[in-house]
Amino acid sequence: MTDKRTELSDLGEFALIEHLTQDFQTRHPETLLGIGDDAAVIAIGNELCQVVTTDLLSEGVHFDLTYMPLKHLGYKAVAINVSDICAMNAIPKQITVALAVSNRFSVEALEELYAGMKAACADYNVDLIGGDTTSSQSGLVISITALGTAPKDQICYRSGAKEYDLLVVSGDLGGAYMGLQVLEREKDVFKANPNIQPDLDGHDYILQRQLKPQARLDVVKILKELGVKPTSMIDISDGLASEILHICKASKVGCHLYDEKMPIDAKTSMVAIDFNLDPSMCALNGGEDYELLFTIDQKDVALIQSNPNFSIIGHITNLAEGTYYIDKSGSAITLRAQGWKHFD
Amino acid sequence: MTDKRTELSDLGEFALIEHLTQDFQTRHPETLLGIGDDAAVIAIGNELCQVVTTDLLSEGVHFDLTYMPLKHLGYKAVAINVSDICAMNAIPKQITVALAVSNRFSVEALEELYAGMKAACADYNVDLIGGDTTSSQSGLVISITALGTAPKDQICYRSGAKEYDLLVVSGDLGGAYMGLQVLEREKDVFKANPNIQPDLDGHDYILQRQLKPQARLDVVKILKELGVKPTSMIDISDGLASEILHICKASKVGCHLYDEKMPIDAKTSMVAIDFNLDPSMCALNGGEDYELLFTIDQKDVALIQSNPNFSIIGHITNLAEGTYYIDKSGSAITLRAQGWKHFD
Repeated sequence: MTDKRTELSDLGEFALIEHLTQDFQTRHPETLLGIGDDAAVIAIGNELCQVVTTDLLSEGVHFDLTYMPLKHLGYKAVAINVSDICAMNAIPKQITVALAVSNRFSVEALEELYAGMKAACADYNVDLIGGDTTSSQSGLVISITALGTAPKDQICYRSGAKEYDLLVVSGDLGGAYMGLQVLEREKDVFKANPNIQPDLDGHDYILQRQLKPQARLDVVKILKELGVKPTSMIDISDGLASEILHICKASKVGCHLYDEKMPIDAKTSMVAIDFNLDPSMCALNGGEDYELLFTIDQKDVALIQSNPNFSIIGHITNLAEGTYYIDKSGSAITLRAQGWKHFD
Repeated sequence: MTDKRTELSDLGEFALIEHLTQDFQTRHPETLLGIGDDAAVIAIGNELCQVVTTDLLSEGVHFDLTYMPLKHLGYKAVAINVSDICAMNAIPKQITVALAVSNRFSVEALEELYAGMKAACADYNVDLIGGDTTSSQSGLVISITALGTAPKDQICYRSGAKEYDLLVVSGDLGGAYMGLQVLEREKDVFKANPNIQPDLDGHDYILQRQLKPQARLDVVKILKELGVKPTSMIDISDGLASEILHICKASKVGCHLYDEKMPIDAKTSMVAIDFNLDPSMCALNGGEDYELLFTIDQKDVALIQSNPNFSIIGHITNLAEGTYYIDKSGSAITLRAQGWKHFD
């Protein structure tokens, strides 16, 4: 080991993984794609592929058990992995779960966690096929690997967007982030005075977005019914801006994203304004919405435009034109990712 | 959640996983086996299966960075997952790696960890296909999922042992445990007086067994060349006794294990005696040897008997006869597992 010390925060999560794995080669011809997308892709037989994704949730970093019920946490841990499978335009099939858990947790607490995972397995039609449960020195760590399948020609990579494609997003954005803000505020109030009950009234929608996010498996099915194969796709875990930039980088293209086109629920906007936040910034950088962001060929516009599940929010340009966010006044601002930075 | 609180240690690792996952059903016909073996089994096509296993290593529980170099840890983390694939009589193909790491670690430290994983990927011909790296509040957690393949009719489950089969183990036992004892002793010496250099001379073999265990992929290949398909198989992570009992429970059989037949290296025995430990007890309960334990039909005896990689250590009886360990004096003692109990 050299004497040099580089802090993890100097690189950040994406650059760190890229740096650490850059000189790994793949050896098996059936490994079609390794690191660098929402999931890896393995050929199984001539026409079918398997997609594989792993996510790890760490207490105090990804979740706060002060306001996150264990059952919801179990559900969410499964849903966010299923979301990665959906982002490949694949159907989730199986998951494995590895837990590290301190003895502060009881068997009954883990039963709650598993009840949530079971509910998610039922909702997404997924089999729990493996588990490792060990103790940890502190806190709870949940690592889930999800497996899914898709015909080889139906898999959507981040790298397939091309000039003139349209940028599309499912559902609405920023809600999960505003839910988190409300929960954090009430936690602070509670800490200051434990006798005050949390005031969560009227925030059902955004709390649900934060505490029980849904993987958009329904979108994968709708796209199939519509006969639309996105040219690229990714799920929104780190915020719209970050995800668009992932697609642009992988596809070697630029983009125009229009503020006025971003789908933001009225409840999200109202709470954002209450918090003195710009709703657009919450949608752009909030993260954890687990909606699907994808690009479509112009020929599919009519099919997508008329579907209430989708919003067309911009278009793809060539690489030289850069990545721009067009604000309400029509000014073009360079798009930057300000998503989660867990190493800060 | 009920008010009742059951401690995790009341159940122990195996019973806990069984308890938590007991009412999960599998939904997909291609999920041939879920939880309960070294790996899950998924049918891919008509003749081939995929096996999937997940393991999680938690700092302070599974490893101690005082004496475990990060490069060795990376190697070991991959090897023990590959070992689970081998235990299904399958060929490892891919792994995903999820890390939770505190900011006490530098980029250079993680480079060492990944260098070890890369060496293991090369040794076992495995592709690293996915990774998630996030921060943790304390310490290092490594969760690896390994994927492998095997023809459906070649997969070895824990449940296939039958009366009159012979119990076979590869390599030798107890070395990894004695390596750990030496490392722990030198750590205590160092803690008492940091000026004393650790005395590890002459312990290369057992240290290697602890710090850089090998998955017995070579055994899977040798068995194939010999034309021997074990009737059941498991890898030895928790100690021979624990693993034999897993096979007996899954196969609904009993066994006779003979002390005098257990393969123990002379160096392991000598160190055990130095530590006032019975070498047989180290082999039985020590764990982490990552050898393969399997049962064979009597017709294959000649092929296995003559191979220096294998030791025939006992035989399978019917369930009613119970599980027995025959000590040096010829007394039959009920076999008990005293392997790792991380929740104690």
